[in-house]
Amino acid sequence: MGGDHGTAVIVKGIAMAMTTSPNMRPILVGDETLIQKELSKYSDLQAVEIVHTTEIVPAEEKPSVALRNGKNTSMRLAINLVQEGKADAAVSCGNTGALMAMALIALRTIDGIDRPALAANLPTIDSKCCMLDLGANIDCTAEHLVQFALMGETFSRVVNGNDNPSIGLLNVGAEEQKGNAVLREAAAMLSASKSEINYYGFVEGNDITMGAVDVVVSDGFSGNIALKTAEGTAKFITTLLRRSLKSSLMAKIGYLFVRSALKPLRHKLNPQRYNGAVLLGLNGIVVKSHGSATDEGVAYAINTALQMINHNYMDDLIQSAARATLAIDRAENGNA
Amino acid sequence: MGGDHGTAVIVKGIAMAMTTSPNMRPILVGDETLIQKELSKYSDLQAVEIVHTTEIVPAEEKPSVALRNGKNTSMRLAINLVQEGKADAAVSCGNTGALMAMALIALRTIDGIDRPALAANLPTIDSKCCMLDLGANIDCTAEHLVQFALMGETFSRVVNGNDNPSIGLLNVGAEEQKGNAVLREAAAMLSASKSEINYYGFVEGNDITMGAVDVVVSDGFSGNIALKTAEGTAKFITTLLRRSLKSSLMAKIGYLFVRSALKPLRHKLNPQRYNGAVLLGLNGIVVKSHGSATDEGVAYAINTALQMINHNYMDDLIQSAARATLAIDRAENGNA
Repeated sequence: MGGDHGTAVIVKGIAMAMTTSPNMRPILVGDETLIQKELSKYSDLQAVEIVHTTEIVPAEEKPSVALRNGKNTSMRLAINLVQEGKADAAVSCGNTGALMAMALIALRTIDGIDRPALAANLPTIDSKCCMLDLGANIDCTAEHLVQFALMGETFSRVVNGNDNPSIGLLNVGAEEQKGNAVLREAAAMLSASKSEINYYGFVEGNDITMGAVDVVVSDGFSGNIALKTAEGTAKFITTLLRRSLKSSLMAKIGYLFVRSALKPLRHKLNPQRYNGAVLLGLNGIVVKSHGSATDEGVAYAINTALQMINHNYMDDLIQSAARATLAIDRAENGNA
Repeated sequence: MGGDHGTAVIVKGIAMAMTTSPNMRPILVGDETLIQKELSKYSDLQAVEIVHTTEIVPAEEKPSVALRNGKNTSMRLAINLVQEGKADAAVSCGNTGALMAMALIALRTIDGIDRPALAANLPTIDSKCCMLDLGANIDCTAEHLVQFALMGETFSRVVNGNDNPSIGLLNVGAEEQKGNAVLREAAAMLSASKSEINYYGFVEGNDITMGAVDVVVSDGFSGNIALKTAEGTAKFITTLLRRSLKSSLMAKIGYLFVRSALKPLRHKLNPQRYNGAVLLGLNGIVVKSHGSATDEGVAYAINTALQMINHNYMDDLIQSAARATLAIDRAENGNA
């Protein structure tokens, strides 16, 4: 029931995801009448299961309020399906704060992970990189950052198909003495665990989209600032580019010639393709779609969930959490 | 003597700045033989004063080492000229950390400002915005952020010509409860001072280049992450755009038609035009040019210094610092 465009777009996205993953069994949680009306438009979706509720989490509701009053909302019931083992993943276009709070309460973190982190892929010049945390945790300890590194490494391996993903810690300079005490401590722990993890070192904001590493790790504050600054800059440049290509008759003629050459760029920067941030570290898969996602974006978010399910992300994550614990213990014994 | 391209580029930049500001009197600090050789190429620069020294601050030297051993370096002697009232501003392409440390020791902060902040302009869709702190202060209190806000407001008024610049605090969401305690406290102080300052509220990373406000205030960690992420994203997109426009014969033909329409975009994104970060809050004007600046970039950095001098930035800043003190006192008495 979440998202800015309502049920129609979500159901259309499901239909799109079904074409590439015909074995998927979606369960739709929300107002049965509204959902049924949309499902009736797609022959593939006639037998889709519905869990009926008319309650929803409003877009601007505080997480604490949603937790208290939202027991029968579509968001909570979808997460409950994962908790009860009736669904392999939950995908939501709704209120991010409420989703994180509900998912944490219902699913809890796995052993060795103290806090869930929000992760997503960003485009880079020749590939993509996984970035986390994007806003779930404003303040983080060095131990949290080490756990995020291992969770991101798992995501990069399982979802992005990187054999031995390199991990960078987001900082304001590459030199060892840069940044704050938390970052330096996390860097020391990761450096001491190079047999467990392909730790690259500190990376700066400009390294993210240049593709310096496969995984960029940060606290949720810096990560959110970086993600939104990158999104804003991309929008800023593409807006100016679009204006330029319409600014004269010559430009309009030229655009007809360059249009097909610009397709890969448009494809690369299409935000729908990067839709679907994943809440990592919980006993279950939860994917957050942008509220503004189109049907294509919804399909991408669903595909992310499917890839995590099909490649046994949860099993891999449990091993990664054990490696994170090992790295932290080693550092703490080394310091003692 | 700083910068990646040596004395030739710096002298060429000075010559360029002289064409628009013929009354400027540059004093060059460094190796007289090297400088004289470059000056001899420009008829306008024959009478330029030189302060001779062969010592320099190496690019990678730690600020503490530069402070201790750098008493006779070109960087320190240039700052000393400002301290002694022999120069109105110092411009350097050298080691940022050393420059900040030396400037702070030699010039001290003005009354009411606890810490200097690094500020620069960034392009926005229809104009530009001033951002600070870009990396001088990793950890900041709410009081520091309020002081940065007033310093940025002054810069935006004096250098960018905005009558009543709007000020935003960089955060991970626009809602009041977002972010950390320091940000919420700074927001409360600025909100209580709306008669003194045009405080807009929290802004997010994507608001920077979209031009939501004239001044974006943050601690040096977040500011540096945002600045470098914006720079990296711009480079990422322009790299892909350049590749696209060379990717086929059709595209190359089209490029001939769109080339002149793309000029404003190229101009807007030209990093040389935004060269020259200013260390605000000191008893004197210090401008940091990128090490990689071209002659055009050096000229822009010099022009920033000239604008601050010509518009009596220092007088304005002293008044702004008094307003910052007032805002902080009011908030603290209000809380008491």
